[in-house]
Amino acid sequence: MSEKSKPARRETYRHFNSIQTRWGDNDVYGHVNNVIYYAFFDTAVNHHLIERGVLDIANSSVIGLVVETRCTFFSSMGFPDTVHVGLRVVHLGNSSVRYEIALFRNDADEASAVGEFVHVYVERATNRPVTIPGPVREVLQSLTA
Amino acid sequence: MSEKSKPARRETYRHFNSIQTRWGDNDVYGHVNNVIYYAFFDTAVNHHLIERGVLDIANSSVIGLVVETRCTFFSSMGFPDTVHVGLRVVHLGNSSVRYEIALFRNDADEASAVGEFVHVYVERATNRPVTIPGPVREVLQSLTA
Amino acid sequence: MSEKSKPARRETYRHFNSIQTRWGDNDVYGHVNNVIYYAFFDTAVNHHLIERGVLDIANSSVIGLVVETRCTFFSSMGFPDTVHVGLRVVHLGNSSVRYEIALFRNDADEASAVGEFVHVYVERATNRPVTIPGPVREVLQSLTA
Amino acid sequence: MSEKSKPARRETYRHFNSIQTRWGDNDVYGHVNNVIYYAFFDTAVNHHLIERGVLDIANSSVIGLVVETRCTFFSSMGFPDTVHVGLRVVHLGNSSVRYEIALFRNDADEASAVGEFVHVYVERATNRPVTIPGPVREVLQSLTA
Repeated sequence: MSEKSKPARRETYRHFNSIQTRWGDNDVYGHVNNVIYYAFFDTAVNHHLIERGVLDIANSSVIGLVVETRCTFFSSMGFPDTVHVGLRVVHLGNSSVRYEIALFRNDADEASAVGEFVHVYVERATNRPVTIPGPVREVLQSLTA
Repeated sequence: MSEKSKPARRETYRHFNSIQTRWGDNDVYGHVNNVIYYAFFDTAVNHHLIERGVLDIANSSVIGLVVETRCTFFSSMGFPDTVHVGLRVVHLGNSSVRYEIALFRNDADEASAVGEFVHVYVERATNRPVTIPGPVREVLQSLTA
Repeated sequence: MSEKSKPARRETYRHFNSIQTRWGDNDVYGHVNNVIYYAFFDTAVNHHLIERGVLDIANSSVIGLVVETRCTFFSSMGFPDTVHVGLRVVHLGNSSVRYEIALFRNDADEASAVGEFVHVYVERATNRPVTIPGPVREVLQSLTA
Repeated sequence: MSEKSKPARRETYRHFNSIQTRWGDNDVYGHVNNVIYYAFFDTAVNHHLIERGVLDIANSSVIGLVVETRCTFFSSMGFPDTVHVGLRVVHLGNSSVRYEIALFRNDADEASAVGEFVHVYVERATNRPVTIPGPVREVLQSLTA
């Protein structure tokens, strides 16, 4: 976990997804609540898969189920900020993929948070793990560089 | 309520705020949950006030409290969509302001939803209604045209 | 709207659903954010329908779509509070039902908020309005008293 | 992480907080979204601190900031379910505390998810880490058994 003990920099990531914060993301302490960071993870990963054409929410018969997530928080974000979500794949297995995700606040070069997000691919009807389908694997492979 | 019985068009609004939908905005029926529409209202109104320099979340001694909201839903939105939030002021009183807000999905000209959002300005320390401060009123006035 | 211009009392309602507030329900002003009130509406209505056996989220071929909601806010709630959601039907049409919903904070007799929530029943596959199915109508009828 | 590789059992925990799921907790796949699990963590920890009298959201001059969270997901939960959140302290340092949290669905003896949640205590005005105040430490100590 050494790489997560200090903030990542933007140059580490090649794919970014930008998300505006919302009024309700701020909690009573005046900063984006820690829970919301995971909404950014979820959104960035699935947005990438949809954009690349390998996830159709309504119809895909094989989908990714989240089996593990984690996040280390370095500095706060707030509303209104734009969060730039850096995404890369750090492990690509037979049926699972582990993403590393970093959140950058506005123009900051240092991440406000870095986390991981693990999907296991399953057959939607049965929830049984399956080999990651070829087209999905290609997209994930392109995130490993 | 006649103006809310059919979808508004973009030309009705001069100020827009754009918000990306998130994975979790979709509910189990596969569309953005009705509750989230109000998060878009909240976000667009406050974003405008902050951007125009008349709301400082941490320090403003006079703030707007929400006393009434409503929404009529015409068509669904989903993830990933960009929601363009049209904003105008339809009533500006001594201490309260009524916004009309319309949500446009991606490039749609017809609103997916139209609603209202009423702020009463109060002294933050006591929650007592106050006359809307001059600088705020100027910003609100500019949204009435 | 006269009945919504002042807080309702508990005796007005016969059916209640209790919901705990969550940390993140509080917004930066230290009270439950207005958006969350609608999450309570959604939750109470659907919980009642599921509990009474007339909504099966995964399988019902006829479902209620939300076409209009509104809320008037009288006083604040916070975390940690228990919200008691009073529910009654104020109009039952051929394909639509209008609920009145009141939110009571902990032991308060006066509502913190009162709102309305309108479902139109549609065929899930086509989104076309249908006559409210008999078993659903029975449940709704029992909420009109 | 060996203890997180399989679901915990109820007997592991002495303190529980119960939370009802909400309609909007379900995502498009029909189960409680992974993000919401962290809302349960946040809610259970802070609820316990408030209930025991060592956190006053509005006034405490020393507060816990979340610096790390993680969760392993074993099985799904849905709406409407009641989630029983088991809580214990697995590490109590000078200024930080690490909670282990397990989520039990309704009457299940095996956890649907197990995670960790780390608070660093800071002076609210400056965000500087401080020694955990005595009364807080006593409460945390009682969760280590």
